[in-house]
Amino acid sequence: MKKIYEAIKRERAYKHAMSLLSWDLETAATKDSIEGISETMGVLAELQYLNFINDEFKKELYSLDIDKLNEIEKKIVKVIKEEKFEKLSKIPVEEFSKFEALISKASSAWEIAKKENRYELFKDYLKEIFETTKKFIKYRGYKGHPYSVLLDDFEKGLDVETCDKFFDEIRKELVPFALKVLKKNNSKIEKIKNKLKEIPVEKQKLMSNSLIKLVDFNRDRGYLAESEHPFTTFFNNKDVRFTTHYYKDDILSNIYSVIHELGHAIYEQQVDDEFDKTTILAGGSTMGMHEAQSRFYENLIGKNKAFMKSLSKRIKELYEIDLSEEELYLLVNEVKRQFIRIEADELTYPIHVMIRYEIEKEIFENLDTEVDVDKLPDKWNDLYEKYLGIRPNTYSLGILQDSHWSGAAIGYFPAYAIGSAYASQIYAAMNKNFDVESAIREENIKEINKFLKEKIHRYGFSKEPKELLQLACKEDFNPTYYINYLKNKFLEIYGGLDE
Amino acid sequence: MKKIYEAIKRERAYKHAMSLLSWDLETAATKDSIEGISETMGVLAELQYLNFINDEFKKELYSLDIDKLNEIEKKIVKVIKEEKFEKLSKIPVEEFSKFEALISKASSAWEIAKKENRYELFKDYLKEIFETTKKFIKYRGYKGHPYSVLLDDFEKGLDVETCDKFFDEIRKELVPFALKVLKKNNSKIEKIKNKLKEIPVEKQKLMSNSLIKLVDFNRDRGYLAESEHPFTTFFNNKDVRFTTHYYKDDILSNIYSVIHELGHAIYEQQVDDEFDKTTILAGGSTMGMHEAQSRFYENLIGKNKAFMKSLSKRIKELYEIDLSEEELYLLVNEVKRQFIRIEADELTYPIHVMIRYEIEKEIFENLDTEVDVDKLPDKWNDLYEKYLGIRPNTYSLGILQDSHWSGAAIGYFPAYAIGSAYASQIYAAMNKNFDVESAIREENIKEINKFLKEKIHRYGFSKEPKELLQLACKEDFNPTYYINYLKNKFLEIYGGLDE
Repeated sequence: MKKIYEAIKRERAYKHAMSLLSWDLETAATKDSIEGISETMGVLAELQYLNFINDEFKKELYSLDIDKLNEIEKKIVKVIKEEKFEKLSKIPVEEFSKFEALISKASSAWEIAKKENRYELFKDYLKEIFETTKKFIKYRGYKGHPYSVLLDDFEKGLDVETCDKFFDEIRKELVPFALKVLKKNNSKIEKIKNKLKEIPVEKQKLMSNSLIKLVDFNRDRGYLAESEHPFTTFFNNKDVRFTTHYYKDDILSNIYSVIHELGHAIYEQQVDDEFDKTTILAGGSTMGMHEAQSRFYENLIGKNKAFMKSLSKRIKELYEIDLSEEELYLLVNEVKRQFIRIEADELTYPIHVMIRYEIEKEIFENLDTEVDVDKLPDKWNDLYEKYLGIRPNTYSLGILQDSHWSGAAIGYFPAYAIGSAYASQIYAAMNKNFDVESAIREENIKEINKFLKEKIHRYGFSKEPKELLQLACKEDFNPTYYINYLKNKFLEIYGGLDE
Repeated sequence: MKKIYEAIKRERAYKHAMSLLSWDLETAATKDSIEGISETMGVLAELQYLNFINDEFKKELYSLDIDKLNEIEKKIVKVIKEEKFEKLSKIPVEEFSKFEALISKASSAWEIAKKENRYELFKDYLKEIFETTKKFIKYRGYKGHPYSVLLDDFEKGLDVETCDKFFDEIRKELVPFALKVLKKNNSKIEKIKNKLKEIPVEKQKLMSNSLIKLVDFNRDRGYLAESEHPFTTFFNNKDVRFTTHYYKDDILSNIYSVIHELGHAIYEQQVDDEFDKTTILAGGSTMGMHEAQSRFYENLIGKNKAFMKSLSKRIKELYEIDLSEEELYLLVNEVKRQFIRIEADELTYPIHVMIRYEIEKEIFENLDTEVDVDKLPDKWNDLYEKYLGIRPNTYSLGILQDSHWSGAAIGYFPAYAIGSAYASQIYAAMNKNFDVESAIREENIKEINKFLKEKIHRYGFSKEPKELLQLACKEDFNPTYYINYLKNKFLEIYGGLDE
């Protein structure tokens, strides 16, 4: 295992450097330094690739006597084989590193395109990203739907069949329900909104700090910065960073971005040193399991009725806005006709995700059909009209809203909805251990962190979602909790829907 | 040359990543992330080392037909041979990377030790750094004084003989002069100081911005942050970052830190793309030439009588402090009995440097004598008493004040004084081309930037100080300009010294 551990040490260093370069690009780097960062990322990505994908290492890896390894070592070897060899070794190194450089440029292009509402600045990059991803799927090989390869990248074991079943349920159960809710006249909420006012960024930063403290994020091991699109990154469990954005005229955007990212960040901070220190098993499990945490904090804690006391108190103290717990609960759970996924209420959220799922699935249906990027904006808008009854009138509100495609994170979106479903299931299990609402009301988030650490967080990348759900919930994935939770919550809030 | 260029591309990526990691450590990283950064730095340093120092590359490098190369390629090959092979290849790679990791930890230890005035937290690191450096000198081999090896690392061609001659002059001409000046009663300056007041950090940041603009630093290609000890770093000529520190009760500290670092930063921004883009010749020339630029901006511009109009106007506008040009000129050129090198006036500055030179020279006199780090604080204090008539009463004001030793930058200090001397010589040459004082008075710093770009900056690392001085001054290094400049300036300010 000596050579394996040496390679892991290098892998960790490359990852650290590359994550820091990305963090720097999003939060600090100068306008003109994009090219330099992209060049360096390209070189490091190539070196990172070659670190595992070389004949000598392959020989070493595949000649190991697995029976002589301990459990962690077995898992390490399995992960390297699956994540590195099976995924990467079939992709020629030049193409891989060219792709990394492309992504870096595409990300910057996307940022400008979104800001200036100019799809034409981004669409060629988008096309190249889609086409290269298709080529890579061909290199890697696939059974069934090619898109399943990408789904599995972000959510181990996930495939088109499972997703189809899950989203069919959303389409059948939630879409008509949500469309009814969206038709309701929310004059009550409009009155509450009239109480809101512009809040300067400096004050909103105090709110961020207060939430960080409330959730018991360890500030010696991480911090908050700003970026266009909020995200979390980590270099190890002792340096976990996340971002938010501030809008003067929207206090909720920052609050829920911070709580969401805190879910990711707490997860990373709570990974056991055993996995974090010297292995490749550092970092959370799949994207879906990661989203389960972020959406647990954002929705199941942050939009829980029991959280309104804490939040209302802070809004009064910091922003001098008087909102009762009931008013706040209505406000943060408003079901809105609006375009932005990350600003979406819990109910319409999986529908936003479903729209992206349908688009991606179709693009990757056939690897030999070229994607017509000129038609994507309309396709996007058509689906919004069909499922949410609204049609974006700018690219920035439509096709350009998410950063994912610019970073080649295709097949990622479904994990958001699946993750939300995990979260509901985990909540139900947690509630069997202690009264979660009481813990929230008493600002005892430590208790929640502790449960999640014990059952999920501490295991880092060493267990798959299936195993973690068994540990936390003692059952397999079951989306019923999610559908029921959403219907019950919003039926209660929006009353009889047929009036 | 293909393989050479490939190695250079990797070298640039490692450098970028490592510089960013250092930047991150100083400006942003969390308290607990030091260990992770240090580990990653160690791994990258080893990879960086192996990138050039391997048999295959060596064979390639030494089998090149030099006559067939163009001028830049010739220079590249020369630099790689000198900077990489001759310096590094004799040091075993494990020792080299262990040393890099040591430096990273030592830097953090120094920071805490300085803050808490606890030399005992740092001295073991210091000893290990000195002893390892000695061992490395042995590996590398040396003629004459072993310390010359280190001097040459930071200032190509510099050796103990040249330094002895230079500092003898300082000791003979400037020390007695400075001691006389220091005895003078500065009641006038005390009155001016009474006009000063505490200025909040936010206002001082506006001053930084104003100076950045005045000096015509390109903000699309760099920015200012904060750190304990101000420094400049660059990833390429399009991403040049520097730091300052803010003290509420000392407005000059920030102002002159910013102007000083701007000298370094302008240098890096003005390196030609030709050298910056794909070669190993990016970045300024030697440390001495770099310091020549920073001290040119700090002293020859920033403490020039002609600059007082600009500065006095800004101090009035931003800080609401009324200081006439004459008052300000006296204030910023006050010759002070004080301990901190980077806060020193121009006159005593080279004496601060000389003290470090004497200590380092003695430590490296004999490579087999172990350094007694317990005695260093007293030695330091004794020299301050001898040359400046003052004795530090804390470690933080004495032996712990500079970051250099914690980063193994030994042999670096003399370049500060040599650089200051270059600066005076360059000023005299510039003055033959245009009236520098007028340019400063008219805030036409562009004109100065332009001259320095043409004669020095644009060449990056492709020319040595000797060549650059010839280009700029049409003569070899001549410290007389410096000694005369200092004596004349401070004689004028402090009047007849014998009264």
